[in-house]
Amino acid sequence: MSGEGATDTTRALRAESVSRWDRTHDVVIVGHGGAGAAAAIEAARAGADTLVLERMTRGGGTTALSTGVLYFGGGTRIQKRCGFDDSVEEMTKHVRLAAGTHADEEKVRLFCDQSLEHFDWMCSLGVEFKESYVAEKTTHPFGDDGLFYSGNEEVYPFAGQAVPAPRGHKPARAGEAGGYLMECLLRASDEAGARALNDCEALRLVQREDGRVVGVVARHQGAELVIRARRGVILCAGGFVLNEAMVAEHAPQLLQCNWKAASPGDDGRGIRMGTGAGAASVNMHEGLVLNAYYPPASHLKGVLVNAQGQRFVNEDAYLGRTSDAMVYRAGGRAWLVVDDAIYARTQAAHRIAAVEESFAALEGALGMPEGELVHTLESYNRWAARGEDPLFHKAPAHLRPLSEPPFAALDCCTANSFFGVFTLGGLAIRATAEVLTPEGAVVPGLFAAGRNTAGLCLEGRGYASGLSIGDATFFGRVAGRNAAAGLEDPQAAEGRAQRAVGERSRE
Amino acid sequence: MSGEGATDTTRALRAESVSRWDRTHDVVIVGHGGAGAAAAIEAARAGADTLVLERMTRGGGTTALSTGVLYFGGGTRIQKRCGFDDSVEEMTKHVRLAAGTHADEEKVRLFCDQSLEHFDWMCSLGVEFKESYVAEKTTHPFGDDGLFYSGNEEVYPFAGQAVPAPRGHKPARAGEAGGYLMECLLRASDEAGARALNDCEALRLVQREDGRVVGVVARHQGAELVIRARRGVILCAGGFVLNEAMVAEHAPQLLQCNWKAASPGDDGRGIRMGTGAGAASVNMHEGLVLNAYYPPASHLKGVLVNAQGQRFVNEDAYLGRTSDAMVYRAGGRAWLVVDDAIYARTQAAHRIAAVEESFAALEGALGMPEGELVHTLESYNRWAARGEDPLFHKAPAHLRPLSEPPFAALDCCTANSFFGVFTLGGLAIRATAEVLTPEGAVVPGLFAAGRNTAGLCLEGRGYASGLSIGDATFFGRVAGRNAAAGLEDPQAAEGRAQRAVGERSRE
Repeated sequence: MSGEGATDTTRALRAESVSRWDRTHDVVIVGHGGAGAAAAIEAARAGADTLVLERMTRGGGTTALSTGVLYFGGGTRIQKRCGFDDSVEEMTKHVRLAAGTHADEEKVRLFCDQSLEHFDWMCSLGVEFKESYVAEKTTHPFGDDGLFYSGNEEVYPFAGQAVPAPRGHKPARAGEAGGYLMECLLRASDEAGARALNDCEALRLVQREDGRVVGVVARHQGAELVIRARRGVILCAGGFVLNEAMVAEHAPQLLQCNWKAASPGDDGRGIRMGTGAGAASVNMHEGLVLNAYYPPASHLKGVLVNAQGQRFVNEDAYLGRTSDAMVYRAGGRAWLVVDDAIYARTQAAHRIAAVEESFAALEGALGMPEGELVHTLESYNRWAARGEDPLFHKAPAHLRPLSEPPFAALDCCTANSFFGVFTLGGLAIRATAEVLTPEGAVVPGLFAAGRNTAGLCLEGRGYASGLSIGDATFFGRVAGRNAAAGLEDPQAAEGRAQRAVGERSRE
Repeated sequence: MSGEGATDTTRALRAESVSRWDRTHDVVIVGHGGAGAAAAIEAARAGADTLVLERMTRGGGTTALSTGVLYFGGGTRIQKRCGFDDSVEEMTKHVRLAAGTHADEEKVRLFCDQSLEHFDWMCSLGVEFKESYVAEKTTHPFGDDGLFYSGNEEVYPFAGQAVPAPRGHKPARAGEAGGYLMECLLRASDEAGARALNDCEALRLVQREDGRVVGVVARHQGAELVIRARRGVILCAGGFVLNEAMVAEHAPQLLQCNWKAASPGDDGRGIRMGTGAGAASVNMHEGLVLNAYYPPASHLKGVLVNAQGQRFVNEDAYLGRTSDAMVYRAGGRAWLVVDDAIYARTQAAHRIAAVEESFAALEGALGMPEGELVHTLESYNRWAARGEDPLFHKAPAHLRPLSEPPFAALDCCTANSFFGVFTLGGLAIRATAEVLTPEGAVVPGLFAAGRNTAGLCLEGRGYASGLSIGDATFFGRVAGRNAAAGLEDPQAAEGRAQRAVGERSRE
């Protein structure tokens, strides 16, 4: 990291030094993606004069570029119609595990307790979900079907600790449905009366000497605007996966990843605006890392091994979990061994490291220590024939001896094999979406949601598709309601007489 | 994390609101441990009027509670007299590896290039090192001998990438030599003319509107002092391993550890003072975690296995590396398998999980999948008889087949099996010891060293004993020199006429 020439552009501006406010609103939201739009809808519906600052020419953010999957449960209409039982209790158990060892219990409970309500709310905005279930294991459903297993619900050790149910809900559009989802949210944001100021880059917060955040400095059409927020500011500006310096500093493992799920706004500015006003950033080292190859559904019956020829994870786990194991358990070297029955279905010919007629020959071709891979595969086969996997507990459905030569080893860790999808760290918030300082105190007047915060799920290895947008929209709503309900700041009220100075008309 | 009732006591005080300065000095240092004393000596010797604020009744910090080992190399007098060749080049190669994948190249080079000079400087303060070498592998040498292998130098993969040399230098005192080391440093700090204000708790920094740090607010004898620093403030207040909330937030794996290498000052205040003035904190999730048991030197010939009966690390690695592997590779479950020849030397009878006459019986007693442990041990024995370990490359000296029944499995992961020794995250600094913002800009007037910063070594699995105090004292000196050499702040000069106001006499 070089400090030459850089300037600290995100340190909060002291409110006492502001000579004029260009605009005044009740609630000012930074970023009009999934979190920001949800916040805007709720704040505006609660009667707050709400302004959303959007850096791009139009809202949408990273959510608009995504598959649009939302994590809902507890017995949604879609779950029921597809024949699945679910309950708040079982959902809570699973989400607690998915969120990681150090999950925020209060956030987990709130998210699950109100999941059905959140589903209904999303439907009320016009978001449609088809009552159809995708049985094939996938992280990326291409059709318009509504429901699938989007995480580790059916997988050891999760399956033993919470009754499995599919909770990935995809809006009823084929391909990437995130754009459709955002259209619904942006329309609702507009209809609720929230004003959007597009092409407007937020720069820093405005903070009073006593610590209260009372506004935002932003750049719009070449000019700097100083915008007053009477009730609160909500940061919903995304993560930092596109900020190479921040990634190098905090989550360097993502540097080697060759693809990111991000919009240009994911440069960490929202996080830095928060820390520039005294907020804590936490969990900054974690990111969701996905292997480019494993597991395609057709290959779940293969055997993943490390450079010692040992297995190291249940091959049927969610992609975030197998990828985490490849990186941290296997040290970034892993092969999927398949037999001809599986191989015939492969679409990864370029990944073939070796093809041999016997396990011993394959072991030799891969340069593995003599006898190790042979033992691993013979042992696997013996157990698989009985439908058991006492080592890593792969589900019986995916257990079948590798018995049809030739046998191939597919290299999962060639160059460009990992996607660093997004960062999992950000501002520390409470379940109220209030932002916290490193001391655990609230930064008054400041809220945040989405990837701008350290979200619900703190570990890539527990992640399920849909948790990001589920989390962002849920806590975005919480932030919107709580900011709008905030007692009006007395000093802001006092200053209202002067606020006409420099105010512009509504865009 | 609860925010109720907490207040943000570490946010920087705005200099413009200071009505009177109680004291004025050139350089103000927070913390009088290894880093702070080294900084004080250099700042005072450079002619700066230097004040050190120490929270306890006397300086010493965590260094005084430690073994006092320092990492020096490149061919010190002790290395040469003990018959070891070393060079700056080989030391640099090793330290770069030890510091971790994302080491700061500039810091690594500076630390190694000037290691001989730093050794001489330490000797010039009266710190004695005996010209004797401890051949037995240990992390905790109890005698007064001067030199030992304190890290992974002789271990795969380090040994193949840099010519091994022992670089752990222990001051010539039996038992814990950290107290003796600190006596020398504190005496030199006093003799150089640095003033120490003991029983003085630093609270927050004082910062000008333009971002420059110009002082410290501290509590002394019940009163708050506002202390001006004309040239710079140096934060040397330690890590955060004793701050449970910060540990829970950033490095929760350390919560399960039952012992910490820390003085009461390691509560993260120095880090929070820095972030409260806009500094970045980085690498906050990393800590040095040590297993309470493995490896005692007598047991290096044993075989470490996970719950699947697989080996997962070279057993002869440094304790920080085997412990990291137990936690992250083996998922917190590991046993050391020994035969009677090793077992006779054990001092860990309470750790015995099973004792059996055969590998198969041991496997059954541990509830491992049938055939796995048997395979692992038979394969290990076959290779060990040839003096080879193609799986994990344990050094030939420690390879011997387990051949004398009975065989015992010692449980390395019983309750209270892990020490969380210290945190490895903290403020971001450059090789100049200047503190950086999240943007990579320098916070003018602010320096830091020691565990208050994200040090040289960023990963527990590469750590070597002596790197912490080596790093702290080295970059403490850099900070002291650079703060003292800083151009005097014009506004401070201008304000000097008024500085008599409220100044107290020297303690």
